[in-house]
Amino acid sequence: MIDVAIVGASGYGGGELLRLLAGHPKARVKVAVSETYAGKPVSAGFAGLAKRSELVYASYGDGAEVAQCDVVFLAQENGKAMHTVPHLLEAGCKIVDLSADFRLKDAELYKIWYGQEHVSAGWNAQAVYGLPERNGEVIKRAQLVGNPGCFPTASLLALLPLIENRLIDPASILIDAKSGISGAGRSKWSQEYHFPEANENVSAYKIAGTHRHTPEIEQTLTDAAGQEIALTFTPHLIPMTRGILATCYATLKEKGTREALLKMYSDFYADAPFVAVREDLPTTKQVLGSNMCHLGLSVDARLNRITLVSVIDNLVKGMAGQAIQNMNLMCGFDETDGLTMGGLWP
Amino acid sequence: MIDVAIVGASGYGGGELLRLLAGHPKARVKVAVSETYAGKPVSAGFAGLAKRSELVYASYGDGAEVAQCDVVFLAQENGKAMHTVPHLLEAGCKIVDLSADFRLKDAELYKIWYGQEHVSAGWNAQAVYGLPERNGEVIKRAQLVGNPGCFPTASLLALLPLIENRLIDPASILIDAKSGISGAGRSKWSQEYHFPEANENVSAYKIAGTHRHTPEIEQTLTDAAGQEIALTFTPHLIPMTRGILATCYATLKEKGTREALLKMYSDFYADAPFVAVREDLPTTKQVLGSNMCHLGLSVDARLNRITLVSVIDNLVKGMAGQAIQNMNLMCGFDETDGLTMGGLWP
Amino acid sequence: MIDVAIVGASGYGGGELLRLLAGHPKARVKVAVSETYAGKPVSAGFAGLAKRSELVYASYGDGAEVAQCDVVFLAQENGKAMHTVPHLLEAGCKIVDLSADFRLKDAELYKIWYGQEHVSAGWNAQAVYGLPERNGEVIKRAQLVGNPGCFPTASLLALLPLIENRLIDPASILIDAKSGISGAGRSKWSQEYHFPEANENVSAYKIAGTHRHTPEIEQTLTDAAGQEIALTFTPHLIPMTRGILATCYATLKEKGTREALLKMYSDFYADAPFVAVREDLPTTKQVLGSNMCHLGLSVDARLNRITLVSVIDNLVKGMAGQAIQNMNLMCGFDETDGLTMGGLWP
Amino acid sequence: MIDVAIVGASGYGGGELLRLLAGHPKARVKVAVSETYAGKPVSAGFAGLAKRSELVYASYGDGAEVAQCDVVFLAQENGKAMHTVPHLLEAGCKIVDLSADFRLKDAELYKIWYGQEHVSAGWNAQAVYGLPERNGEVIKRAQLVGNPGCFPTASLLALLPLIENRLIDPASILIDAKSGISGAGRSKWSQEYHFPEANENVSAYKIAGTHRHTPEIEQTLTDAAGQEIALTFTPHLIPMTRGILATCYATLKEKGTREALLKMYSDFYADAPFVAVREDLPTTKQVLGSNMCHLGLSVDARLNRITLVSVIDNLVKGMAGQAIQNMNLMCGFDETDGLTMGGLWP
Repeated sequence: MIDVAIVGASGYGGGELLRLLAGHPKARVKVAVSETYAGKPVSAGFAGLAKRSELVYASYGDGAEVAQCDVVFLAQENGKAMHTVPHLLEAGCKIVDLSADFRLKDAELYKIWYGQEHVSAGWNAQAVYGLPERNGEVIKRAQLVGNPGCFPTASLLALLPLIENRLIDPASILIDAKSGISGAGRSKWSQEYHFPEANENVSAYKIAGTHRHTPEIEQTLTDAAGQEIALTFTPHLIPMTRGILATCYATLKEKGTREALLKMYSDFYADAPFVAVREDLPTTKQVLGSNMCHLGLSVDARLNRITLVSVIDNLVKGMAGQAIQNMNLMCGFDETDGLTMGGLWP
Repeated sequence: MIDVAIVGASGYGGGELLRLLAGHPKARVKVAVSETYAGKPVSAGFAGLAKRSELVYASYGDGAEVAQCDVVFLAQENGKAMHTVPHLLEAGCKIVDLSADFRLKDAELYKIWYGQEHVSAGWNAQAVYGLPERNGEVIKRAQLVGNPGCFPTASLLALLPLIENRLIDPASILIDAKSGISGAGRSKWSQEYHFPEANENVSAYKIAGTHRHTPEIEQTLTDAAGQEIALTFTPHLIPMTRGILATCYATLKEKGTREALLKMYSDFYADAPFVAVREDLPTTKQVLGSNMCHLGLSVDARLNRITLVSVIDNLVKGMAGQAIQNMNLMCGFDETDGLTMGGLWP
Repeated sequence: MIDVAIVGASGYGGGELLRLLAGHPKARVKVAVSETYAGKPVSAGFAGLAKRSELVYASYGDGAEVAQCDVVFLAQENGKAMHTVPHLLEAGCKIVDLSADFRLKDAELYKIWYGQEHVSAGWNAQAVYGLPERNGEVIKRAQLVGNPGCFPTASLLALLPLIENRLIDPASILIDAKSGISGAGRSKWSQEYHFPEANENVSAYKIAGTHRHTPEIEQTLTDAAGQEIALTFTPHLIPMTRGILATCYATLKEKGTREALLKMYSDFYADAPFVAVREDLPTTKQVLGSNMCHLGLSVDARLNRITLVSVIDNLVKGMAGQAIQNMNLMCGFDETDGLTMGGLWP
Repeated sequence: MIDVAIVGASGYGGGELLRLLAGHPKARVKVAVSETYAGKPVSAGFAGLAKRSELVYASYGDGAEVAQCDVVFLAQENGKAMHTVPHLLEAGCKIVDLSADFRLKDAELYKIWYGQEHVSAGWNAQAVYGLPERNGEVIKRAQLVGNPGCFPTASLLALLPLIENRLIDPASILIDAKSGISGAGRSKWSQEYHFPEANENVSAYKIAGTHRHTPEIEQTLTDAAGQEIALTFTPHLIPMTRGILATCYATLKEKGTREALLKMYSDFYADAPFVAVREDLPTTKQVLGSNMCHLGLSVDARLNRITLVSVIDNLVKGMAGQAIQNMNLMCGFDETDGLTMGGLWP
């Protein structure tokens, strides 16, 4: 049994880590940090944990308690992790950062998109981008993993097989993504997310290349393509709590059929325990609460354009579940430990 | 006061016609046909009409009662209207057909997409496509109007200004549309729309050029462009009752700015009482229950690609409201009669 | 055409007044006051009004502009109206106050429940409680009406026939009410109403006699019964935007059958245009957007206990619609003017 | 590891059994019976299980395969289990029946409420009512357990402490329950549960003593009280997928305070791992996906009436989770095996 710390354990990411790690066979949460609830039981942050967990929230303090853990999950808002990571790395912790601090290789890009200087730019370059289906082998040897954003996870799992196999025109990529409102986080309540105004409502936001996940998606696709890739990414807010469906479009370089492409995808993900390629079209609820990504696709022969549908639970495969998958790889555990349970239906 | 008949007055389209016409200053519903509820008060079909309407459902019978009305709304499933239209036209009725029977000019296309021979192919060619913002003048003189589909309405209002002004590459058009579940109709319940399975769920369906609204959109854009247009259209099902948000993408032929394009859109729709061009991005709830279409847009300068957001209430501007707008034009009324009320918020 | 002012025209109550008065044949909104949006078009407060209203928000200032209107709707938070009412009454305005300031006859009770001294206690005693189905004749002669709360409206319409006919044990009354979240108001967003936390969630709040609507319901029932009535009232929050369903229970003094009681209710409300007594059980969506209250009931013969189901739209019959109904009575208009339209389905 | 069979493994109860048993340390599903999907992978019934389960649906056939399992969960519609139970008991299986067939001791009562003769009336009398918090010791020795209904579970856990301690007037009990729509089952889709009609809608149904769970609740309370108990039970349908909130009312025999009653409840459930007594009021989402029941309460001193709020996930503690809890007791496992995980938030 390894000891695990969660820093930022009263937000949605922290809550999912608590939920999923409760069933992990080789890891247990020893420290749960929340400045808001320090000294109170975790049921103060998540009422549902009454009689299910004895854990008491701690303050981060000088970090000594956290630094004694084998693995640390940083689940704070952007701009926090870069301050604590150096100390924790020196203490020998393995770290999975769920914020955006260690996702972008280029510190300049970080500054542009997140509005602040990166104070650990060196570590930044060493961090591994924690998408196991692409970087699994490197993650196994990593001490610091930047856990991918939710939209990038859904989008990259859909597009990487096409990019790596050089099947599409790199200039033709378009991602139209739909997310449940939990993606906004727990403490970001506002009129926009006020139930009466968000319910029975769909909206697009940060369109035309202005969402922070755009450079994150482009970074990995560019790396995979071996050439610069710029794309259109449009996020939408959907009146539901969890789930992302990313509809991805691209023009095929040569004629391709649905059957052949499905076969290619199935082969590509044959060894990936958390990616299922489907004959029919997947829906977000089918992965609710689980670490799965489901993919479906079709081709419009008239336009030679492929349409891909990718679904994940934004808080699991798009956040806490993927973080545990990364921990499993970093610690030499089975990749699926603690993540075997299917989702809820309905 | 003119007399109006609604054939198919117990479905969602018929219900909205009843609701909206109750406040119309120049038209009153004289005959409401529903074979299911014939002989019963309209409150048998819509419980909310108890004490609000004295109307009693009638059977269509030989059509004599309907044929005595000035205007007939046909709000039945596809394949019904084409049988009754000739008789009603001969009787002198003005007709707005809310089904797909008189939308496609090409009877061959109708057969391919709707799986049956068109029995009134001649009338078909004479019917006017009832999108007032494009065909307003022709509608004023029409006796038979094919009321547009919900997805085409939202999509065409977004794309027509670009097409008519020849601003985009016609091969670059992509429409990613999100619809509330009322679009499935009232009698189409199934496991897919079973609340526990549809709630907290998003899905794509009929992707890659297989949805019937694809040829309908292409027909009007082709006509406006003066050249053949083929596009990608992807419908999605959203866990809400009403509303369509269509996100439309296209590549600009020349550099364009958001400001210039917004100006062009505002000018284009200056005289359209039901199309509002917005500085910010519209959301579906903002048009709930009203006949409005709201448009917003932005441009990604890197890709020279425009992203358009178009929202309507699928049962009003996408169905019954637009049908009344057509009636107003056909009868020489003010275009906004009976449609002045704003939507519900929240 | 009379001139109407709305003070507090950017909240949910004000928005519904704007929506409903747009279709009123004898009243038009001349002044819409919102300190937040003063100087901006009403579409700044309600985006859906773009191209549907030319009205510009005003500041209240010294009240001169408002005081020139024939009717003033006060739709502000509790504790505001009691300050402005004396001046407006002296100016000759008829006033409908949508807040709680003029609902409770007893200024002491107001102080206990609303935590502040009533500064217009004298006017308070003269104000008429604006439940037209009980006080219609008095409302016709009133200059100041306290518009009822949403829960009291649904509850009183269900219970008054039993109380007035002395059919139940007054000590046996229990009201279990379920409300959509718009009842919390527009500016009251908080974690509790944050979509991800409010969605797929039901909660009870202010149970066991601690909700402010308890004394309001008891005041009217006590008056109708001619004896002191104390009851249990439990409000619940439901994951939907609009609608209240109040389930009311009481023990019958003598054996009663469902049929006889339905007949009594139908007779009781025979002349009430907005109360429909139903053979089956009403649901909240059946009155969505309309000014109707629907009632259903049954009797458990074993316990001789009646169960009543009462539904309203909390923002219409529970707020703005009822306020307009009161204005109609105060001005000698037809009680249904501007309120004839049925609700939306679905 | 014991072998488990699930009969009726494609409905909501069966799906939850599959989900929860996947994480059980001492039991594994060997046979999953579904006539609809026999021969197909379980992912045909639950798409989310793709790549997460290798199990293939079987047909029940002569029952031999099922009879070889140590424990059998019967998760079929009412009226099925009573036919198969005798054979499986003779084969030595331990059985948990999730239908209503073995809940009511009195076969006459079964006939009245379920409209058919009970064909295993003898076994019926021997079956143990599977509410572990009341019958834990008996369940440990039972071979056949009738798993309680969802409403009775929430209601009984709230009321039993009062009844067993003789604190309330038995004639004063009233239960007003609110349920998510999954309670209707998976194959019961209809217009009532059609998303556009069920969404944004609350309804009461089977009011005034006509719901089948009334006699089930009364049976256990009567047994606990040692005197006949008849009560009012009203179920409501809420626009959400999962969750029950039961608001229970009763008149206290003597003056009681909230504090004293909370203390009594905490003591009563001190050893119950799945019942948490809360200082504040619980909400349904706090138990989403978990086997917990949370209780809150308050007292209206004026009326000496207690209001209790009880929440469960209807498909877990109200169905599959409780069934596993019963299996754990019957097999001598730890009561919480496989049920330790907290719920999802949000």
